[in-house]
Amino acid sequence: MTFAAVVTTPRIWVDGVAASALPLPDRGLDFGDGLFETLLLKQGEPLLVDYHWQRLEAGLLTLQFPDNTLEHARQCLALACDALHELSWAALRLTITRGTAPRGYAPPAQAAPRVIISAAPLQQDRREPGSPAKVGWADIRWSAQPLLAGLKHANRLEQVLAAGEAQRRGLDEVVVLDQQGDVSSVSAGNLFIVEGDRLRTPALETCGVAGTRRRFVIERLAPALALHCEETHLSPADLERADEIFYCNSLRGLQSVGELGGTAFTRFPVCEALHQRYWELITC
Amino acid sequence: MTFAAVVTTPRIWVDGVAASALPLPDRGLDFGDGLFETLLLKQGEPLLVDYHWQRLEAGLLTLQFPDNTLEHARQCLALACDALHELSWAALRLTITRGTAPRGYAPPAQAAPRVIISAAPLQQDRREPGSPAKVGWADIRWSAQPLLAGLKHANRLEQVLAAGEAQRRGLDEVVVLDQQGDVSSVSAGNLFIVEGDRLRTPALETCGVAGTRRRFVIERLAPALALHCEETHLSPADLERADEIFYCNSLRGLQSVGELGGTAFTRFPVCEALHQRYWELITC
Repeated sequence: MTFAAVVTTPRIWVDGVAASALPLPDRGLDFGDGLFETLLLKQGEPLLVDYHWQRLEAGLLTLQFPDNTLEHARQCLALACDALHELSWAALRLTITRGTAPRGYAPPAQAAPRVIISAAPLQQDRREPGSPAKVGWADIRWSAQPLLAGLKHANRLEQVLAAGEAQRRGLDEVVVLDQQGDVSSVSAGNLFIVEGDRLRTPALETCGVAGTRRRFVIERLAPALALHCEETHLSPADLERADEIFYCNSLRGLQSVGELGGTAFTRFPVCEALHQRYWELITC
Repeated sequence: MTFAAVVTTPRIWVDGVAASALPLPDRGLDFGDGLFETLLLKQGEPLLVDYHWQRLEAGLLTLQFPDNTLEHARQCLALACDALHELSWAALRLTITRGTAPRGYAPPAQAAPRVIISAAPLQQDRREPGSPAKVGWADIRWSAQPLLAGLKHANRLEQVLAAGEAQRRGLDEVVVLDQQGDVSSVSAGNLFIVEGDRLRTPALETCGVAGTRRRFVIERLAPALALHCEETHLSPADLERADEIFYCNSLRGLQSVGELGGTAFTRFPVCEALHQRYWELITC
């Protein structure tokens, strides 16, 4: 079900200027002192861009970046998107770091954040649904850090370890639990389960990323299909006895799960209806 | 007690070549997918370098970097140190990232790690003891991730937040607790308490960095002064009723604590003896 791997040299801009390197030193490299967003572009148009900006804004506030940082990022994104109109589909990563500073963990009083954008074409029409994913239970658990929960910050070693686990085990994804043993997410996406006419998704109080597509499901898709949607605690057993499971992220959209550990899922009527509605609503 | 701030443009090498920028994309910037060491150089000689290599080696193994990565780092460090002999004292940061890769969290099968070194002179003789530090209790707690505990990986946003707290509150450092409420460390150093002829330091089972100077105290300094040293759990109350407290890191060495929250410490006989022995043993 994996989309064809696309190994393309990305186009890169640093602070709005085409570039192939990041000036050093940079606190993004040094400490992961930054945030990022992964946007799906359709002919140069970033989809759900307001959700991305709102999550970024929350992160910039938590990390106490200067007030004008978001505006700088908006200008950089506009420049990059202008240059990407010829691509049917593209994946764009926008990274904001706290820029250069003297040695040491403490943020500088006068930070000058940098915006790094990299973009590459995607070769498959993203509207085609992926075939049901093969998913396992991760050994790693997400650590609990309420101060950073929900944000898409650049400290992602746990995700690297989780994705490495999936890769080594020949899985499309792994379900990761939190420190309490509740279900949190997959390595690169948010999880939902379907129970009758109800959706349930982990509440992300202590860990995880509050995904833009998760928010879209909660605020737009579930109401459009008259599904009740609840942010809650989910146990592993909740997943195993669910009618359907899906995960979602910006590039993949909604992805149904065909197998989780030893449990097979064969029918996906709700996922299919959500997927169809997703593409009706997201592009308008 | 703060050492004079040194704002000097560092000298930088990427993979052994003098540089001012990092080629992009790089997984160090993207995910903090890397490790680092901060070394103190005396006339171009890195002190306790074997301890640094051993911690790096453990981290490279955990993150499953290619086998030849450490050797590459050794060559890069040797080159840099050769160029730094004229400096009495210098701070050198050696960062290893997993290098360039296609988009996505999963590590590439054939990673080509990069070694980034930056170094800057230190203007004060590091053998001079700092005056006792003013320390508070941090609001942030370190998250628990046993898979990464002890390693000096590049996901350091929690340290950035903790150091920011210290800075805002006019403190030299903050003591950070773990998720269980036990004492873990300061934002940039390991903690020890003195109780009679005994040293105690947090065990770092779920979080924290296993500092090179922490190891030096445990393995070399405590035995040299006939002090019993225990890696254990420490409560906040243990710190408040200790005879002395100190923290340590590679650049500062051993730093006594003069004030912790409302508790004052006025005599530092053990810290002073350890500090003196530190400089006798570390330079021979």
